[in-house]
Amino acid sequence: MAYLNDHYLKLKAGYLFPEIARRVRVFCEQNPAAAKRLIRCGIGDVTEPLPPASVAAMHQAVEEMAKRDTFRGYGPEQGYDFLRRAIAQNDYRARGMEVADDEIFVSDGSKCDTGNILDVLGSQNRIAISDPVYPVYVDANVMTGHTGEADESGAYAGLVYLPCTPENGFIPVPPKEVVDVIYLCSPNNPTGAAATRAQLEAWVNYAQANKSIVLFDAAYEAYITSQSIPHSIYEIPGARECAIEFRSCSKNGGFTGVRCAFSVVPRTLMAATRRGEPTPLHPLWLRRMSTKFNGVSYIVQRGAEALYSPAGKEQVRALIDHYLGNSKVLVSGAKAAGLTVYGGVHAPYIWVQAPSGLSSWQAFDKILHEANVVITPGSGFGSKGEGYFRISAFNSRANAEEVARRLQALKW
Amino acid sequence: MAYLNDHYLKLKAGYLFPEIARRVRVFCEQNPAAAKRLIRCGIGDVTEPLPPASVAAMHQAVEEMAKRDTFRGYGPEQGYDFLRRAIAQNDYRARGMEVADDEIFVSDGSKCDTGNILDVLGSQNRIAISDPVYPVYVDANVMTGHTGEADESGAYAGLVYLPCTPENGFIPVPPKEVVDVIYLCSPNNPTGAAATRAQLEAWVNYAQANKSIVLFDAAYEAYITSQSIPHSIYEIPGARECAIEFRSCSKNGGFTGVRCAFSVVPRTLMAATRRGEPTPLHPLWLRRMSTKFNGVSYIVQRGAEALYSPAGKEQVRALIDHYLGNSKVLVSGAKAAGLTVYGGVHAPYIWVQAPSGLSSWQAFDKILHEANVVITPGSGFGSKGEGYFRISAFNSRANAEEVARRLQALKW
Repeated sequence: MAYLNDHYLKLKAGYLFPEIARRVRVFCEQNPAAAKRLIRCGIGDVTEPLPPASVAAMHQAVEEMAKRDTFRGYGPEQGYDFLRRAIAQNDYRARGMEVADDEIFVSDGSKCDTGNILDVLGSQNRIAISDPVYPVYVDANVMTGHTGEADESGAYAGLVYLPCTPENGFIPVPPKEVVDVIYLCSPNNPTGAAATRAQLEAWVNYAQANKSIVLFDAAYEAYITSQSIPHSIYEIPGARECAIEFRSCSKNGGFTGVRCAFSVVPRTLMAATRRGEPTPLHPLWLRRMSTKFNGVSYIVQRGAEALYSPAGKEQVRALIDHYLGNSKVLVSGAKAAGLTVYGGVHAPYIWVQAPSGLSSWQAFDKILHEANVVITPGSGFGSKGEGYFRISAFNSRANAEEVARRLQALKW
Repeated sequence: MAYLNDHYLKLKAGYLFPEIARRVRVFCEQNPAAAKRLIRCGIGDVTEPLPPASVAAMHQAVEEMAKRDTFRGYGPEQGYDFLRRAIAQNDYRARGMEVADDEIFVSDGSKCDTGNILDVLGSQNRIAISDPVYPVYVDANVMTGHTGEADESGAYAGLVYLPCTPENGFIPVPPKEVVDVIYLCSPNNPTGAAATRAQLEAWVNYAQANKSIVLFDAAYEAYITSQSIPHSIYEIPGARECAIEFRSCSKNGGFTGVRCAFSVVPRTLMAATRRGEPTPLHPLWLRRMSTKFNGVSYIVQRGAEALYSPAGKEQVRALIDHYLGNSKVLVSGAKAAGLTVYGGVHAPYIWVQAPSGLSSWQAFDKILHEANVVITPGSGFGSKGEGYFRISAFNSRANAEEVARRLQALKW
């Protein structure tokens, strides 16, 4: 008799975004007039077209695939050298960090990477996760069997939750207890908070002292607007011995529908065997990628490479500036509406406290029905997200301005 | 202290194809003259350019992504409706099989799917795998912890190996013992054998009797040249209750570098919880896809859809005919060289017995050094592959003819 993986049965309800999509669909079916003025600020999905440099590069790659002499079949599973080099050079070495080309692993998404990384880690690790947090970190751990059942608040037994609150600026502080693997995300999804150098140093020190590994999700690093905030965990001395970094072309190059991301696994990063022998993780991740993955589409990799060209960099900068401009508009609007607002400075996300003691989903339903705006309920990101909601700045400027107006017109 | 997944340490040597690449690289560095006449028939990678219908569709998709009105961000994780419908309609319903659009899950590769499917299956399943076999099936199970250590022959404790030999026509017969999950691949990689209807019926009957699940890899179905051989496991009554099918655009549309594949998980397929309660697997796979995957590139999905257009179908047919023509040339040549040859009729692979009692790697080295042709050693596919080698028919006609000539010139 074939058995299923019972750990899946512990997962609560639907994954957050499908559930939002379901409620919006029902609303639109029941309110066709309101549906026409709906503005979506829910899922963190880009809205502006691809940078022309990527468009041109992908057209050219498609043409190469159309001719026998330039056709390419299987590529290296870990990514083409041309892209690994562009990433390592531009994102790291040009900024004074030591990262080798072959420490870059090109993938089809950070969502995949942050889940798949668990494949090479032992099941005995004690896992710490921020709360609130991108739900994929938690769900991937549940599926793998790293947790027990969820309690009423949605918290799973066996995970160490690191509360992110206004008191700590939504950046978790290292716990007193020992944890082996820590997920950090900065600039943060969903709160928009960005970790300072001192905060990251505290985590690297903690990881070094405890031989822990930090899984650092820097998908939003391009949104950092202050010189003093690190773009990469590798700006912190010692991080090459204790951190894996995840980055993506989704939120800078607008690649959410194109699919390209990467992970950085330094050759100097060790994890222990069951017997406690320190062993490099790099060969295990390489083996995982070459066995359970077949590389990113050649066409897409050429599109990603073009983001690092001089023209591509300018075009990416313009996209980021556009979305950050929206953030500013939304922060002002929400503040003018009397709401308590966080984030939105180094991130395309505004983290808002639901007024009048409303729950996150109550606020979601009210904003959907009365302002015809889709936001994301904070409780979908964890129990400490309850009472908050996230507004995404991924939109046209006109829509961001309209959302700001509608927020001010709402009666709580 | 962070721990690694010790199961990875059980994996033997390198994954097969990187090891071949390594030996070829060393040979070419040491023999620059011979390197110039090298012909690669090792890895099963297509050589001919993409079908023009796909090229046009991908250009158009790139253009859509370049304009705000037609830009697409995140798509449905399980694939766009337009592609799921094209697949279900053309590959299944038009051939008399009942498969719904939402039973199709679009992915970036069958390699990924056949490994990832283990995520939703329990660790207590007894797994049966053909020998020889595509190494990924075995390695993915080792990584997940479904096996013990490998013995000297490379066979892992805990797996049930199903010998494929000339005696059974390289199609395994159901074992006497009960196994819960069975990997089958037809037309077969590496042996080129294709399962008859009666052989598949025996497996479906076995799976029904034992409530087992068949993982059916049909990546090469387009190469079937006989009306009587099933293209899909769902041609067998009862298969919707016991089988998952994997297919790919790699070997028909030439998408090895473009990346698109799909799995079929019928809603009628059940697996048991730990307590023995039958539960549909479809929601678990959907959850896995939407949590640990973000969908295939929109551009690529449009390219895949075009393979199902009238023009696309003709162009795919021409590609298949080309590679099957190579198969014929290689089979004739190898037979004329006095070799014992299998496969090559319903598949782009020729499975050859190494003469003079040579081992697979001895034959590999001899053919590399003396004929300057890269083949794949059969032992890389499992212990029962020892003493064989695989010749891939993915090449130009001129190269296939030259390989046939060189095989005949070889002195064993």
